[in-house]
Amino acid sequence: MLAELITIGDEILIGQIVDTNSAWMAQKLNLAGIKVKQITSVSDEKQHILNALKEAAGRVDIILITGGLGPTKDDITKRTLAEYFNVGLRTDNDALENVKNIFSKYKSPMLETNLRQAEVLENCTTLLNLNGTAPGMWIESGNKIYVSMPGVPFEMMYLMEELVIPRIKESFKLPSIVHHTILTAGVGESQLADRISIIEDSLPSHIGLAYLPKLGIVRLRLSGRGSDANTLRDEISVYASKIIELISEFVIIEADIPLEKAILDLMGSQGLTLSTAESCTGGYISHLLTQHAGSSKVFLGGAVSYSNNLKSIMLSVSEETLHEFGAVSEETVVEMANGAKTNFKSDYAISISGIAGPEGGTDDKPVGTVWVAIAGKRNTISRRFQFGNKRAQNIERSAINALVLLHKLLKEEQA
Amino acid sequence: MLAELITIGDEILIGQIVDTNSAWMAQKLNLAGIKVKQITSVSDEKQHILNALKEAAGRVDIILITGGLGPTKDDITKRTLAEYFNVGLRTDNDALENVKNIFSKYKSPMLETNLRQAEVLENCTTLLNLNGTAPGMWIESGNKIYVSMPGVPFEMMYLMEELVIPRIKESFKLPSIVHHTILTAGVGESQLADRISIIEDSLPSHIGLAYLPKLGIVRLRLSGRGSDANTLRDEISVYASKIIELISEFVIIEADIPLEKAILDLMGSQGLTLSTAESCTGGYISHLLTQHAGSSKVFLGGAVSYSNNLKSIMLSVSEETLHEFGAVSEETVVEMANGAKTNFKSDYAISISGIAGPEGGTDDKPVGTVWVAIAGKRNTISRRFQFGNKRAQNIERSAINALVLLHKLLKEEQA
Repeated sequence: MLAELITIGDEILIGQIVDTNSAWMAQKLNLAGIKVKQITSVSDEKQHILNALKEAAGRVDIILITGGLGPTKDDITKRTLAEYFNVGLRTDNDALENVKNIFSKYKSPMLETNLRQAEVLENCTTLLNLNGTAPGMWIESGNKIYVSMPGVPFEMMYLMEELVIPRIKESFKLPSIVHHTILTAGVGESQLADRISIIEDSLPSHIGLAYLPKLGIVRLRLSGRGSDANTLRDEISVYASKIIELISEFVIIEADIPLEKAILDLMGSQGLTLSTAESCTGGYISHLLTQHAGSSKVFLGGAVSYSNNLKSIMLSVSEETLHEFGAVSEETVVEMANGAKTNFKSDYAISISGIAGPEGGTDDKPVGTVWVAIAGKRNTISRRFQFGNKRAQNIERSAINALVLLHKLLKEEQA
Repeated sequence: MLAELITIGDEILIGQIVDTNSAWMAQKLNLAGIKVKQITSVSDEKQHILNALKEAAGRVDIILITGGLGPTKDDITKRTLAEYFNVGLRTDNDALENVKNIFSKYKSPMLETNLRQAEVLENCTTLLNLNGTAPGMWIESGNKIYVSMPGVPFEMMYLMEELVIPRIKESFKLPSIVHHTILTAGVGESQLADRISIIEDSLPSHIGLAYLPKLGIVRLRLSGRGSDANTLRDEISVYASKIIELISEFVIIEADIPLEKAILDLMGSQGLTLSTAESCTGGYISHLLTQHAGSSKVFLGGAVSYSNNLKSIMLSVSEETLHEFGAVSEETVVEMANGAKTNFKSDYAISISGIAGPEGGTDDKPVGTVWVAIAGKRNTISRRFQFGNKRAQNIERSAINALVLLHKLLKEEQA
């Protein structure tokens, strides 16, 4: 069962908005056992939309279309679909009721164009959209299924979850799809591939392995397809265990979650607290942690000690240390981490100081020099990194490596 | 001049990552005067990639391909392109040198697969990628241009900015395109449109006006097309001035830079310093500021005071205030801002406290309630906001609105 997602609208093609709908839809379809073969974004032009529909029908079984259902002149999806199927439009009574309800609820004046929102293709099953005025449409034609939905994310999500996915599941006997992700850190993908090639080569054809690298983190994803989800899950688990045996020192967690979330979960389960002392990362680690709901159980807060003065005030770093060794030094980050742990009364503390660039490097400490320290329950560890000269990357790499070090110390002190 | 973007890789099709590359590329191409006609995401399958290339060649002049250039088995873009063009691969000496440099810099062991990263299509011009091991490739064939780049965002961005866009500009006689951006805050796009309609209606056909809204910020972009850039620039400036006259109270700056950069530049030019006291934004404002090189001239640092205890320790917020009014209150944010300004010895300080959600709301203070205060040279101002229940959005909206308030106070205290 293959699907294609077609998004209609110029705002994606001029880069004004990022197409987050497609990723969300692809995830939901994947979990339901439907493979998304292609995602296509096209402009609000009739001929272009017609071509995209025709091409998609040559590739896949289900075509999910979002966008272009609004009341303004540039919204041409509905009449283009009518032309594609060579059918007319009819007013759907339930959809009309829904439009009237919405306008009376918001006490807005209703225009002729708004009433036309209740028109649907003659050959469709209407998918009533309780979150907006534009109804979804389900069309079966030439052995293919076409679904048209609004591009507004929460309207699309409502239709997908409540009506489209259940209807797809009813209509087809779908294979089960199981994914199993291993989050690794501190190793490159080619080295990983080398280490686990014996397992990778032994995978049966219905199980695939993907490497998903990002700045020091590599996700290994085993994906399998079969008739029974439980059998598949067990089978994949065996391969996952074999892989983990070969790369155990790099494994953070067997789950598809961000590194910082894995750490928050681990610390939360043990009642441990964390604080931060960030210089060159300028609050980025705090931001990563606090993106996650419930992070306040573990993360108490921290200092963004950009200036030397604030390193002394907030973190009790001694002026002698700063003077003798400089802000970017092992001595300073160790005092920063211990200062954060003591002053902020946390069990663990991360500290970072470095030269993010592009300016500020010296012969001794070129741009990209970063010191990280982790103060733990018993020990304080530290490490020097040498990254490149791109500021944004240095900030991100520093944060990820600091989190990896924290995870390492957490595991050691647990053992 | 039409372009199509093809992204290759299963991770987009299973929804594991959101395709942010395409939006970024579309923006850059648009600014250079190239229209993106379609964005296509395809899987790591040879036949599918071949079809996508052929279809794109039937639609557009330039095909920009990202992804699938890694060293592992699922990366098949290079050999698929070789088949598409019916050419072989050659080792590029500069690319090989680059791979070796990168491995020696990071002191990683180099494998056979890594050396193969230096292989490129026989018929291509190599685009040396100093940010990674996979070179980009520029291929001219059958009157079309194909560009292959890695999918890693900062590698793609480097190649696009340094090599691809300049090369496209050289290869084609593109009309001059001049953009002039006015950054506004604190006003919606329909209200702006209403205020400046008289100017918008008077624009000649070769100058367009776009409204680019994002979470409380609206960028107005005048874009003109013509044969002479200087004449065009002068002409557009006149319209920009007329627009600004009508909406002056909402204008932050006449430049296409982020809000926080405009503030850093303004404060830097006046020798003013800034500190932050962040609760619900958890370091996001600090992160925004410190993304920019040279921010340390203005930004001294700040407190991420997630817990109440840290609000007292770092910001001298009195326990009575926290007890009587709660962490999310005008009284608390005012003390936070004044505490940051005094303790961190800055000229200005931003403070934020709110309920980012999705949990933690009360009848009195539902999720999305956010208090912001700005301590300035003479005054401290504060304001309550009521946002929705999406955590990530609440964090972003809080940060932007705090920066807008800071800008307002800066202008007032200057006047």
